[in-house]
Amino acid sequence: MQHVYVSYTSLGENEQHGIRHAGEKNTQEKIIISNERPWKPWQPARSQITGCVRRVQTAMLSLAGLEWYCYAALGVLTAFMSFCMDLTIGKLLRAHQWLYDCLEGNILLQFLCWTLYPTFLCALSTSFSHSICPQSAGSGLPEIRTILSGVQLADYLSLSNLFAKLIGLISTLSAGSTVFLGKVGPFVHLSNMVGAYLYRLYASACGEKQRRTQGEMLVVASAAGIASCFGAPISGVLFSIEVMGSHYSVRDYCPCFFAAVCGSLTYRLLSVCSREQETVQAVFKTTFPSEIPYQPPEILIFAFLGLLCGAISCVYLYSHRWILRFVRTNKFISRFMATEKTLYSATVAFLLASVTFPHTGGSFIASQLSMKQLLFSLLDSTQWNLISHNTTLVQESPHSFWQEWSPPGYSVYHTLGCFILIKLWLLVLACTLPLPAGYFMPVFIYGAAAFAGAVTHTLSPALCALELTGQSTHVVPILTATLISNALARSRHQPSFYDGISLIKKLPHLPSLIRACPELSSVQIRQFVVPVGAVLQRAEGVTGVQHILNSSKENEFPVVDTHDSLTLLGTITRAQLQTFLLSNQSEDLCKSLEDECSIQPVKLQLSTDATVKQVHCIMSILREQCVFVTEKGKLCGVITWKEMKNMIEKLAKEI
Amino acid sequence: MQHVYVSYTSLGENEQHGIRHAGEKNTQEKIIISNERPWKPWQPARSQITGCVRRVQTAMLSLAGLEWYCYAALGVLTAFMSFCMDLTIGKLLRAHQWLYDCLEGNILLQFLCWTLYPTFLCALSTSFSHSICPQSAGSGLPEIRTILSGVQLADYLSLSNLFAKLIGLISTLSAGSTVFLGKVGPFVHLSNMVGAYLYRLYASACGEKQRRTQGEMLVVASAAGIASCFGAPISGVLFSIEVMGSHYSVRDYCPCFFAAVCGSLTYRLLSVCSREQETVQAVFKTTFPSEIPYQPPEILIFAFLGLLCGAISCVYLYSHRWILRFVRTNKFISRFMATEKTLYSATVAFLLASVTFPHTGGSFIASQLSMKQLLFSLLDSTQWNLISHNTTLVQESPHSFWQEWSPPGYSVYHTLGCFILIKLWLLVLACTLPLPAGYFMPVFIYGAAAFAGAVTHTLSPALCALELTGQSTHVVPILTATLISNALARSRHQPSFYDGISLIKKLPHLPSLIRACPELSSVQIRQFVVPVGAVLQRAEGVTGVQHILNSSKENEFPVVDTHDSLTLLGTITRAQLQTFLLSNQSEDLCKSLEDECSIQPVKLQLSTDATVKQVHCIMSILREQCVFVTEKGKLCGVITWKEMKNMIEKLAKEI
Repeated sequence: MQHVYVSYTSLGENEQHGIRHAGEKNTQEKIIISNERPWKPWQPARSQITGCVRRVQTAMLSLAGLEWYCYAALGVLTAFMSFCMDLTIGKLLRAHQWLYDCLEGNILLQFLCWTLYPTFLCALSTSFSHSICPQSAGSGLPEIRTILSGVQLADYLSLSNLFAKLIGLISTLSAGSTVFLGKVGPFVHLSNMVGAYLYRLYASACGEKQRRTQGEMLVVASAAGIASCFGAPISGVLFSIEVMGSHYSVRDYCPCFFAAVCGSLTYRLLSVCSREQETVQAVFKTTFPSEIPYQPPEILIFAFLGLLCGAISCVYLYSHRWILRFVRTNKFISRFMATEKTLYSATVAFLLASVTFPHTGGSFIASQLSMKQLLFSLLDSTQWNLISHNTTLVQESPHSFWQEWSPPGYSVYHTLGCFILIKLWLLVLACTLPLPAGYFMPVFIYGAAAFAGAVTHTLSPALCALELTGQSTHVVPILTATLISNALARSRHQPSFYDGISLIKKLPHLPSLIRACPELSSVQIRQFVVPVGAVLQRAEGVTGVQHILNSSKENEFPVVDTHDSLTLLGTITRAQLQTFLLSNQSEDLCKSLEDECSIQPVKLQLSTDATVKQVHCIMSILREQCVFVTEKGKLCGVITWKEMKNMIEKLAKEI
Repeated sequence: MQHVYVSYTSLGENEQHGIRHAGEKNTQEKIIISNERPWKPWQPARSQITGCVRRVQTAMLSLAGLEWYCYAALGVLTAFMSFCMDLTIGKLLRAHQWLYDCLEGNILLQFLCWTLYPTFLCALSTSFSHSICPQSAGSGLPEIRTILSGVQLADYLSLSNLFAKLIGLISTLSAGSTVFLGKVGPFVHLSNMVGAYLYRLYASACGEKQRRTQGEMLVVASAAGIASCFGAPISGVLFSIEVMGSHYSVRDYCPCFFAAVCGSLTYRLLSVCSREQETVQAVFKTTFPSEIPYQPPEILIFAFLGLLCGAISCVYLYSHRWILRFVRTNKFISRFMATEKTLYSATVAFLLASVTFPHTGGSFIASQLSMKQLLFSLLDSTQWNLISHNTTLVQESPHSFWQEWSPPGYSVYHTLGCFILIKLWLLVLACTLPLPAGYFMPVFIYGAAAFAGAVTHTLSPALCALELTGQSTHVVPILTATLISNALARSRHQPSFYDGISLIKKLPHLPSLIRACPELSSVQIRQFVVPVGAVLQRAEGVTGVQHILNSSKENEFPVVDTHDSLTLLGTITRAQLQTFLLSNQSEDLCKSLEDECSIQPVKLQLSTDATVKQVHCIMSILREQCVFVTEKGKLCGVITWKEMKNMIEKLAKEI
């Protein structure tokens, strides 16, 4: 049959239909036809092209392994996705602004336009993502961390989730700065889904020769995700190091950098092609004076800023955890959320939009600026002091955002104060929305690197700030402030933003649990060990093997010395057992298991005194799928990732 | 006696002498005196100060753990050391230059001054380092990597090595650019020695409560070392990630950044204090135009540069390995090196200095420039094209180095060509010198980030270049070039610079071995397992225990079910056995071991089918000191770091 299917591709559609019919009618006849080599048009040209493609393929694979092409593809694809998303969101935001400006003069219509547009988009995002794939709501980063720690979560890396998350995220971000949500977290989730898909292609192309695991591909995808989001390769790699696991394999370092550079280069080149930027450079370029950027004593001020950001981050994290828990425990809201997610999103979005309406309170918090404009104004080198004293400077400024920051009659500092006071609570409220959205960017805009670092317990926001601005003159003060704010935020085992979500969502992520409750690191596996279901003994006969094959669905079975001693000898696969049965059915003399099958020795055994943390570490670093537990030489249990997940879930209940 | 010793500190020198005499004469009398609370001057003030110190201590420890103060001290100390070294070297280099200038007009005297000064310094460095601590010669980085992988190397972290390496390195670097050696590698070694010393202090202060291991302190020390060397915190941390091990623990990430920021901040503040720089900023600041730093198609040129650097790095690495092997295998030179190291150093230094003498060939390779000036001229934004056409520009330039690069009658390109052609071979020759010296900086000066990255198989030189110059406009092209040069250098399993040294010096560093010969990663421990010396059985009596305690010096002994079954039950310590013996000597009824002592279960058992790589990974990541090997339930061997070292050495012989 193979030949017939090959010939399909070269035929026109009508002819194909004909052959398919023929195939359905008479298969016997078709095989005869296929053996006669069907006629193909342009035979020599086709064979030349095929030969050429093969040669190129061989040359490319001799240059680098297939995995490197996957990494490059990952970087380019995520960058392309990021750029298209930005373009679409920009157009939708401009449409809203245009409509709002057209209605100038009629406050009621303007109010409706201002509030209903984001309300509709948030409702769309919620209903779309929940109807296609409910797992697509939220940031997705805590789930990705859980998957990278080794635990499998269903549907989080599927293509339907990719589709739902992409469309949902575009809708959310098009709602603009009234809803004040970001792109980073979901985008890392998206890039991980692309990575998982590329990994499937890679695995099917390589077969058993594959040299990389899915985990490695996902770490690379995380780095590429951040890099393509901002065009910032270095902070992408650092982010993947510090957020994604507890041990970073240096083997992944070069692939991460490679994919991140591919991603950021593509992202920036696309900006150049679309005439957004003149050349490949920082996305939010600053022009601080580089001669004497600051005097040494100013470092103390930066340190104080770090302390302040750390303190505010504690308030923010506490409020965030409180509101998430409130939404889940309050009877009315949780029932409302369970049935009417879309209505809840629409209500909250309407509320947020009403508060930020420019003709009421919005003018005090510069609400007409988009996320991008807010970031631009944050990183602008114009001194705020000058603007607050000089109104003509504001009018003459090439950047329109200064007029927003300094509305007639009020100083810049007044607006900034209101912004800082009000936005924090609006942001906390927006975090409860059940739609695909990121929380890093708003946090970054609100309090810059030191605050974002403190909220996420990371240092990569400091590098992100450096790469976004393209200036590294302030590297030492930024790092100092971020370190200090981190120290404050991490004191007394407060969970980070991601850890908090993991804990509240009860995700089986052990590092989060241990950070929140360090005593758990000494819990032994003794109480959790599940006895092994089916055990074979070395002298097992045909009936015993037959019984075990029928009663169990495992693919691998442990073999012990005798059922009494339970001394573990090794493992044996289902296929081996089936061969054993077949060979013994034909012969009269029944041989024992040991004589016929080679028992695969077990490389590693654990005792019941090992801690959950140690077992988790061994399984995730050595990429073991199954570990046997013995006590005083006797086999007493088995731990797979399924059991590990159960263990972590039981531990989570103990907090 | 304790009270007497405490009181010493508060007494004047004469009084102390008196008490010591008294102490020697009559100890009995002194104990009586000590119990009577000896008179101390300023009793109230002293107790106030002691209370104050205690309060400060408590407050500081409540703020952060002791380890964080150690990290800060590590950063500050290494930065201070780095700065003092730079200052001394600068003075010695200026002295040489001054003497050379004074002798203007007499070529013979100038030649003697030019050649004998570095010859003498190299001879001094060699003889000093070899007479105090022979391990202080060379870079030290490959040895540090080996120590960080878990294997102990004697004398590499001792204080005498610190002293010898410090003085030796200062002498080597004062020999200047004629010898063309650098600071980085030995300085990382120095910072590791400081780290090890601080760790000893920390461990003695904390006792059993210590939360950090020596390995963690050394990783932090490596980051702080690089950071203090250049004032570059981020590349310091990245360097410690990619060079130091195969798995990076994310737990070390914050300490690394903290120490690195402390180090670089101190280093830069010291520069400000000494009026070298106006404020805290990049060490080699550049002023490339930041508006449009480069056009997008120029990235292809950067990529080609990366390819070129990768190709040259292969030549360099090959020559480097060849000459190191030649020096070790050539009968005459190896015998000469074994007995007359100082003479060898002096000869090579004299040869290098003769070749670079400005009045002969030196003028073609800009030999009068120091390492720092070479780096400055490399990173200067003046276009070379302009200089080659415009001689007045050279004379008017504020930087004197352009006159060196463009000697009368020759263009800049001519000098640069000679520099590139000749310096490579001089550098290869200089690498054979048996003195404390680094090889990173010369490589960085020779071929910048892409070349240095290719030679060391790392990407952190790219970041180092960004941090040294303080401009991140070129981040994408630099990373692209470095990635491409790395890809070329890593092709066909060529060892990196550090791996090459590890292999030639036969250091027990498994990752280097596996990178050079990937088949070794599947070697099983079967052939290397050493049988356990002393084994106790659960019903062991007094005589058996007595015999084992006398015949073995181990601190921990495995306990098996019976000597026939050899089923491992757990371990028991020497102290427990001694208690067991004592309690049984007094009683008539002899109890068995099992009744009296609690057997500590073994958390982890390996089979003989585990590979050396897996065992190494488990031992280094889980920080296990001793792993038992069982086969089919029977104890058959033990692996400690000593056995691991032997295994790796045996593997190295197989290459």
